[in-house]
Amino acid sequence: AKAECLQVTGSFKFRGGVNWLASLDAKTLKRGVVAYSSGNHAQGVAAAAARFGASATLVMPSDAPSFKQQATRAWGARVVTYDRVRESREAIGEAIAAETGATLIPPFDHALTIAGQGTCGLEIQEQATEAGIVIDQMIVCCSGGGLAAGLGLAFSEHPPKAGLWTAEPAGFDDMKRSLASGKPERNARAEGSICDALLAPQPGTIPFAINRVLYQDGYAVTDDEALAAMRVAFESFRVVVEPGGAVALAAALFQPRPNNADVVCVTLSGGNVDEAMFTRALKTAVPPFGP
Amino acid sequence: AKAECLQVTGSFKFRGGVNWLASLDAKTLKRGVVAYSSGNHAQGVAAAAARFGASATLVMPSDAPSFKQQATRAWGARVVTYDRVRESREAIGEAIAAETGATLIPPFDHALTIAGQGTCGLEIQEQATEAGIVIDQMIVCCSGGGLAAGLGLAFSEHPPKAGLWTAEPAGFDDMKRSLASGKPERNARAEGSICDALLAPQPGTIPFAINRVLYQDGYAVTDDEALAAMRVAFESFRVVVEPGGAVALAAALFQPRPNNADVVCVTLSGGNVDEAMFTRALKTAVPPFGP
Repeated sequence: AKAECLQVTGSFKFRGGVNWLASLDAKTLKRGVVAYSSGNHAQGVAAAAARFGASATLVMPSDAPSFKQQATRAWGARVVTYDRVRESREAIGEAIAAETGATLIPPFDHALTIAGQGTCGLEIQEQATEAGIVIDQMIVCCSGGGLAAGLGLAFSEHPPKAGLWTAEPAGFDDMKRSLASGKPERNARAEGSICDALLAPQPGTIPFAINRVLYQDGYAVTDDEALAAMRVAFESFRVVVEPGGAVALAAALFQPRPNNADVVCVTLSGGNVDEAMFTRALKTAVPPFGP
Repeated sequence: AKAECLQVTGSFKFRGGVNWLASLDAKTLKRGVVAYSSGNHAQGVAAAAARFGASATLVMPSDAPSFKQQATRAWGARVVTYDRVRESREAIGEAIAAETGATLIPPFDHALTIAGQGTCGLEIQEQATEAGIVIDQMIVCCSGGGLAAGLGLAFSEHPPKAGLWTAEPAGFDDMKRSLASGKPERNARAEGSICDALLAPQPGTIPFAINRVLYQDGYAVTDDEALAAMRVAFESFRVVVEPGGAVALAAALFQPRPNNADVVCVTLSGGNVDEAMFTRALKTAVPPFGP
């Protein structure tokens, strides 16, 4: 398991944020950055901006976990909230960028974001080599697909023999369905999963263009499977994983895997979860492993 | 924070176990090893024995958390239980060693154990140097004192300017009282703290001989402070810490520190905790930081 819950800000999103900030010249940095996010990208951008001495404005849904909003403010960023169902976060973010001259940092649909997240894949390969592990199957938590795309590119020269797979919440498996149909599919709903980090309405254009070439297939994971995987991570790895960060582990534990997949690597892509949700996970019955 | 909860078997104890097994010749290895432990040393020795292909018998108190007994068995070891208050674990361990020819691996009062645990201190120094951090105060979770002694030796050439400090559960602060009086003090009670890993009745002879020279002073931490520190570790570091593994963090967060201690390093010495105790921690009110 690649424990991105232990990354600065508690998710892989810091990687993309740092890559963006590192790409801006001094004059552009001074005008600050803006981003829209359900929480983890917000924290990643806020922390990256703080590291580079830039101001940051984050557009977050009003129903994002309040501790994620607080954590974002704790990095010195300004938080603007919006209604996830009725308002467009893209429009709000672009309006702020136009007004202030701030640089908009897209959560997944940009080469710089994807390249930043991809460092996670490079690290997995380094660490696996160091530990003498050959990964047969790689399962990646997926929302808009930025992490999956970056990680896929990192693996593209030496792909795992049983392939790269995405994992998404059931009902929000737009990437899985898009991989199957060959065109970008939208989710029917905008809310209704505990996996608050994985609710992008459809695959990003660039991530999908990459993932459709590099990815084998996808998994769709129920809320109960995600909660059970959080409990397993607590007991077996002693790390804190959020529901959306546990879907790849849940797929590996509870869903069928290819016959040639003995060694499976999963991303634990985030660990920003509040006490109530984590307590719920600790009470969840863990089904027998395997399909 | 040095997250030994992420170590193999979920605590630093694996270090001492590996150092012991690595020191035995093939003939001695064949006769197996035996150890007495409240849980973490048992798992550390069981896992080290499994790695070296040796059989292991672990003498564990009947009131040790049942999941710690299960985890020990999961490494292929035999578990023998005893009554913590009425029986002597040392006597039972020595009797098994005499009968079977197995090597007894002491939990803290031996140079090989102390040297193994000391690798934790060497790693802290390497990692601090790599991160450009100068540690002003080092606080170490302490029971018999093996980790404290090994870590103290690792720091002995370049001690932190505000010194090395032990942290223990209130009522089980035998090391703190021994450092103060200059002679080994015993705890009045053998049970009654949630810090099940830190209930050794008195400092080990060798650890105390080392610690009395190298350690500045000790902290005594209440159960509620340990629980609050577990919650802070959950929120801020996203790692799972057990009560006994959280006392050093609790001391850093909630108790007075020396005036010259701006950068404090703590061991999170173990993360073997069951769902019920962790849920209790998540509901614990976190007091304001600082004394």
